[in-house]
Amino acid sequence: MRAVVITDAALHVEERPTPAPGLGQVLVRVHAAGINAADLLQRAGFYPAPPGSPSDIPGLELMGVVEQLGDAVDEHWRGARVCAIVGGGAQATHVVVPVSHLLNVPDHVHDPHAGGFAEAFSTAYDALITQARVSAGDRVLISGAPGGVGTAAVQIARSRGAHVTAVVRQRLHVDALHDLGASEVITIDQLTDAGTFDVVLELIGAVHLEVAQHHLAPFARVVVLGVGGGATAQLDLRRVMTTRATVTGSTLRARTNAQKTELASLMRAEILPLWRSGTLHVPLAASFNLDDVAEAYDFFARPGKFGKVVLTMPDS
Amino acid sequence: MRAVVITDAALHVEERPTPAPGLGQVLVRVHAAGINAADLLQRAGFYPAPPGSPSDIPGLELMGVVEQLGDAVDEHWRGARVCAIVGGGAQATHVVVPVSHLLNVPDHVHDPHAGGFAEAFSTAYDALITQARVSAGDRVLISGAPGGVGTAAVQIARSRGAHVTAVVRQRLHVDALHDLGASEVITIDQLTDAGTFDVVLELIGAVHLEVAQHHLAPFARVVVLGVGGGATAQLDLRRVMTTRATVTGSTLRARTNAQKTELASLMRAEILPLWRSGTLHVPLAASFNLDDVAEAYDFFARPGKFGKVVLTMPDS
Repeated sequence: MRAVVITDAALHVEERPTPAPGLGQVLVRVHAAGINAADLLQRAGFYPAPPGSPSDIPGLELMGVVEQLGDAVDEHWRGARVCAIVGGGAQATHVVVPVSHLLNVPDHVHDPHAGGFAEAFSTAYDALITQARVSAGDRVLISGAPGGVGTAAVQIARSRGAHVTAVVRQRLHVDALHDLGASEVITIDQLTDAGTFDVVLELIGAVHLEVAQHHLAPFARVVVLGVGGGATAQLDLRRVMTTRATVTGSTLRARTNAQKTELASLMRAEILPLWRSGTLHVPLAASFNLDDVAEAYDFFARPGKFGKVVLTMPDS
Repeated sequence: MRAVVITDAALHVEERPTPAPGLGQVLVRVHAAGINAADLLQRAGFYPAPPGSPSDIPGLELMGVVEQLGDAVDEHWRGARVCAIVGGGAQATHVVVPVSHLLNVPDHVHDPHAGGFAEAFSTAYDALITQARVSAGDRVLISGAPGGVGTAAVQIARSRGAHVTAVVRQRLHVDALHDLGASEVITIDQLTDAGTFDVVLELIGAVHLEVAQHHLAPFARVVVLGVGGGATAQLDLRRVMTTRATVTGSTLRARTNAQKTELASLMRAEILPLWRSGTLHVPLAASFNLDDVAEAYDFFARPGKFGKVVLTMPDS
């Protein structure tokens, strides 16, 4: 197979042995694989892959077609269009995935969009619904709204009947965020007049959280998923005490296989029906061919884009 | 009645009209009333009483005897030895309390100890059990362990089968904390070698939390109840994400009557049996006569004490 390989903080495409699926696993011929902030951290040497994932092949999500079945995998999976999150190694022409982690891709969704679905929507779902228990009428604040997880989160929160306030850095992508379901699109400076929030999805980090903490409703739930805007936040403990707010955070990458199986099961029940019906979709900022991976990462690192950046694999 | 009154950040004992109990309320002839950090904040003008509580009479907990019954209160309460938390006004010879907030004081417990029970144990119970869900085998870190809430928390966590590590400022009260059930008693400097914790009860604030955050086990629950050691903490968001820790906080004072009723109900079911059996008790640092209230507050404000400081009321 061919794979993106990180060597001394640089990206190359190299030939590697194609892995074989084991018990309960399938080999997926990858068609598209999303790029995430974690990949850039890994390239910089800060975010090593968890045990069981390739140490030098980045990529946390993929879409493709099931090509080989391991033992104890039902025959109906052969040839299925699927997507999944993985602990690493997705930016390659082939990747092995436990069958319990697979999500079926709706027929109408094109490969590059599907390649950017699994990580963004699983992350947003887990944070908003499992952790922050967003429900109808909740006021939800989402920083970094134009990004991959942000655009997924705006749609998922809206699908639960929440009032969504999307935060953008400049006044970019306002109409597009309204189209996804945001009731308000504001800059961080406009937060002062935006009232209080039941849920804050923090995709930027300290620079936003330090402002948002003064706009928490009683029992607010703050979930931190990104720290590009600062990893050390001055937290106002009195504010936490008087609002009885909860600050938490998570990553998907380091979760166990069993935890990923549970999350995939929730995604099948709660999110895939909305993807199939067209209620949810993956905005695509750009797709790049595998051989242009360095350019793709550079594009990803620049601000101002809307939606996901995806690598597409050459035909086999 | 006679009451402690705050005037221009000074404390006096004054004559005030004795209140009358309304529907579902009783008038308690107070025998003892604990002093809490909130009282000192209120004296300094920082922590006004919530609506429905006297604005200038401090005191969040009391013990006494039911003297008058309001409408719809069962006759069996008359003459009962009770304790309770209130939103303010406890440091007086009389106070009106909803009957649903009353806790029966065990026969063997002396008045001054009972006067320091309700706030400390309700606060520790709510934080450790309701919020942090402490269970057998959990490793629990308690900062400010020698204080009123700290000594209550050590006992409650131990009663649930947790492994309790008590943090003290100097090497004071080590034996006494072991006697209450602490497995380890350490200073903040010794935290480096103390492993990781499932639950952190933060009674000191930023200066301790900033160290403790590097000793969180996966899914750790941090509950902040005190900020005497700094109200603004540099929170390491990456640490929160990778451990999937939760940071929250609370106060009891501003809770609604319904919430206090629910908490009292939990206390009756879960904590009072252990108080009656002698498993839990209130260590008393000192008790002062009502007329010595200024001296009592000064004593409370000094570091190094162990357990509660209580005001005792003159005989009626």
